[in-house]
Amino acid sequence: MLYITRKERFNAAHKLHRQDWSHDKNMEVFGKCSNPNWHGHNYDLFVTVKGNINPETGFVIDLKFLSHLIKEKVVDKIDHKNVNLDVDIMEGKMASTEVLAQAIWDELADAIKEQGCSLHCIKLYETENNFVEYFG
Amino acid sequence: MLYITRKERFNAAHKLHRQDWSHDKNMEVFGKCSNPNWHGHNYDLFVTVKGNINPETGFVIDLKFLSHLIKEKVVDKIDHKNVNLDVDIMEGKMASTEVLAQAIWDELADAIKEQGCSLHCIKLYETENNFVEYFG
Amino acid sequence: MLYITRKERFNAAHKLHRQDWSHDKNMEVFGKCSNPNWHGHNYDLFVTVKGNINPETGFVIDLKFLSHLIKEKVVDKIDHKNVNLDVDIMEGKMASTEVLAQAIWDELADAIKEQGCSLHCIKLYETENNFVEYFG
Amino acid sequence: MLYITRKERFNAAHKLHRQDWSHDKNMEVFGKCSNPNWHGHNYDLFVTVKGNINPETGFVIDLKFLSHLIKEKVVDKIDHKNVNLDVDIMEGKMASTEVLAQAIWDELADAIKEQGCSLHCIKLYETENNFVEYFG
Amino acid sequence: MLYITRKERFNAAHKLHRQDWSHDKNMEVFGKCSNPNWHGHNYDLFVTVKGNINPETGFVIDLKFLSHLIKEKVVDKIDHKNVNLDVDIMEGKMASTEVLAQAIWDELADAIKEQGCSLHCIKLYETENNFVEYFG
Amino acid sequence: MLYITRKERFNAAHKLHRQDWSHDKNMEVFGKCSNPNWHGHNYDLFVTVKGNINPETGFVIDLKFLSHLIKEKVVDKIDHKNVNLDVDIMEGKMASTEVLAQAIWDELADAIKEQGCSLHCIKLYETENNFVEYFG
Repeated sequence: MLYITRKERFNAAHKLHRQDWSHDKNMEVFGKCSNPNWHGHNYDLFVTVKGNINPETGFVIDLKFLSHLIKEKVVDKIDHKNVNLDVDIMEGKMASTEVLAQAIWDELADAIKEQGCSLHCIKLYETENNFVEYFG
Repeated sequence: MLYITRKERFNAAHKLHRQDWSHDKNMEVFGKCSNPNWHGHNYDLFVTVKGNINPETGFVIDLKFLSHLIKEKVVDKIDHKNVNLDVDIMEGKMASTEVLAQAIWDELADAIKEQGCSLHCIKLYETENNFVEYFG
Repeated sequence: MLYITRKERFNAAHKLHRQDWSHDKNMEVFGKCSNPNWHGHNYDLFVTVKGNINPETGFVIDLKFLSHLIKEKVVDKIDHKNVNLDVDIMEGKMASTEVLAQAIWDELADAIKEQGCSLHCIKLYETENNFVEYFG
Repeated sequence: MLYITRKERFNAAHKLHRQDWSHDKNMEVFGKCSNPNWHGHNYDLFVTVKGNINPETGFVIDLKFLSHLIKEKVVDKIDHKNVNLDVDIMEGKMASTEVLAQAIWDELADAIKEQGCSLHCIKLYETENNFVEYFG
Repeated sequence: MLYITRKERFNAAHKLHRQDWSHDKNMEVFGKCSNPNWHGHNYDLFVTVKGNINPETGFVIDLKFLSHLIKEKVVDKIDHKNVNLDVDIMEGKMASTEVLAQAIWDELADAIKEQGCSLHCIKLYETENNFVEYFG
Repeated sequence: MLYITRKERFNAAHKLHRQDWSHDKNMEVFGKCSNPNWHGHNYDLFVTVKGNINPETGFVIDLKFLSHLIKEKVVDKIDHKNVNLDVDIMEGKMASTEVLAQAIWDELADAIKEQGCSLHCIKLYETENNFVEYFG
C-alpha cells in the first residue's frame, strides 16, 4: 500500500456570510472574512490517492491522468471564479475551506475508485497559515 | 549603504476590466482575470528600504516601525477587501499588480524618508509565479 | 470528521545539556547543540484540531479563536525567549524539540476540548530539516 | 509515542521505461518521462521515525545519527547518479518515485530498529507537485 | 519603469564534462557533477521584463503571452530532456547553469523587444542552494 | 558578466542591547529583541559572486570552492553559537542582521577576489519576514 499526492492550484474570491443573518451578525461571527465586496485567496490543493503499485508500470495511479482529472473536475470549476456565486458544487453551501474540501472530495472519489485505487485525503490550503484535511 | 526588507501579506479580491469596454472585449484582453464576479489572491508584499546603519542601534530603520507603517498605510486598507471597490488608493485605476505596486509606493515613500532613509523597492507577488518590482 | 491546522511562529534560544553531566559528556552526546552560550532557532508550529463541521458557520473551530489561543498560551511564553531559562512550561525539562512539542500539547489540549473539538497533532519545526509530531 | 522527521536531498537522472516494450509503447504509457536520453530531478526525502522519548536526552533518536545513516545508506548511493543505471538498490526495478520510496525503506528500516525505535514513513518528493508516502 | 517576472519550471538531465578531457580530469574538476551516466535537476526559471505600464491595460506585458513564449521557446525544448544531448540551443556548449541561462536569454530577448519592452534578467535555479542571474 | 549565488544556513543565539544603556532603555529601543537571556534564529545566507564565465569550465566560480569557503570563514564561526559572545568577527559590534551582513562581507571579499571574480552581495535572512542586502 502506497500513498501518492498531486498538488494543483487555483485562485478564487469568496466571503463567509449567511443571508439569513444581519450584516452585523455576519461581521461579529466572521469578521473581515465577511467583507461584503468579497476577498480572495491563492488556494493550494493536495489530492492523495492510496493503492498498490502496478508491477508493470511502477505506478499507483498515472499522475498525468490524476492531474487532468483534478483540472477537469475541480480547477476548471473554481479557478479565477467566485466560490459563493460561480461554483456549482458549492451552491447553497458555506464558502469555508472546510466545506470546499468536502465538495472537492465528492467530485473526485468515484473517478479515482474507477482506476483501481482510492482517494485518501483532500488537503486544501487557504493561506500559508491555514489548511484543512478531509479523509471522507 | 545597506538594504533592509520587510515582508507583509494581504488577501484580496479583484478583477481586470474596463467599464468603457464591452464584456467581450474585457474577456478577450484579460481572459479569466476578467471574471465578472471577481477572483482573488494571497498577495505577498516586500518593502525594501535603503540607508546607512545607525551606529548606536545597528539599524537602518526600526523594523517594528516599518512593519507598523506598512500595516497602517497598506495592509489595513487592502487586506480582506476588494481592490476594485473598497481600496481608496486604487480608486479609478486598473486593479493590476503593476498599478497596485505603484500605489503602495506612493503610500509609503514619504513616511520612510522622514526616518532618514529612503524607500528602494516595492516587490509584490500576486501568485508564486507572478510578481512585479517598482523602484519609483 | 475534518482536520484544520493553524501555523504560528516563534524565535527562541536554547541548548541541549544536562547539569548533572560534565561539559565533556554534554558535548559528546549533544555536540554543537550543547554550546554553553546557547544557539537558537526560528520555530514553526502547526496545531491541528479534529472535529465536525458546524453546519451554521462551516467551521470546525474559529481560526481567529485558535490563533489567539496559541498566541496567549504558547507564543507569548516562548517567542524571543530562552527555552531553558525563561519558559515556565519547560522548567526542569530537556529543551529538545520533542519535549517542547509535548509541553505545547499540554498547554492547548483542554482549551480546545472546551470548544467541542479535540487537539489532534502538534507539529514543530526546529529547522527546515528537522521536525517532530506529537499526537498526545 | 512521538514522531521525528529528518529531511535530506539528492539529485538524480532517471527515465520511466520497460526494455520489454517498444519505444512507441513506452512513450504512449510514460510520455515525456520516457525520454530515451533521460531527464532528472531534485528529490526531497523525509524520513520519519516513531518512538518514545529517552528521558535522559529528550531524544527519540539522535538526529546526527539519523542524518549520517540516511547519507550513508541512501544519499551517497543515489545523489548525482542515474537511478536506472547506477543505483544497486534499484537494479531490475522500475525507476518510479513509488518504487524508489520502497527501496529506501528497505535500506533504512533495520538500522533504525536497532536504535530502539522504528521507521514510520518514507516521504519522497519528485517535484514540488508530486510526492509519495510509504509506511512499510 | 516597472519590472515584472514570470516563473516557469523544467526538469532535465545533464552532466558537466569535456570530451577533450580524460575521465579523471573531468572528475577532478567537476566532481560528482561529471557522473558519466548523468544526473538531473528540477530547474526554476524566472524571466524578468522591464517596461512602462500600458495605461489602457495596466500591463507592462501580457503575462499569458510571456508564459506561452517561455513555454514555446524554452520549456518545450528542455523539459524532461537531456541538456547535453537533446537541446539544440545548448549544442556544443558546457551544460552549466551559467551557460544555460545565457542560452535562454538569447532565445527570448528579441521576442520580448517586439512587445515594446525589454528582457531584464534570466534567473535560473539549479537547486534551492544554487542559482545564477544574467542581465545580457 | 554573470551573477552566481550560493545559499548556506546557520543557527545562532543573539540579543540586541548596549551595555552602556540601562535595561529599561534597551527594552524601550529594542523591545523583545533585547531579552536578557537571548533568543535565536535560523539564518539563511545568500552569497552572490559576479564575474565572467570561464569558457573552459562554464563556471564563474567553482561552487564547491565557494561553499567550502563560506563554511570555513562564516558558518563554522557562527553556527550553533551566540553572535554576541562567541563570534570573533562580531566582537564589540551590535549583533543586528545589518552589522552581521557587513562582517560576513569582510570575511569573504578578498578570498573571492583571488579567484578572479568579485563578491557582489551578501543577503542575510533573520526570519522569513526580515532580510538585509549589503553590496560593499
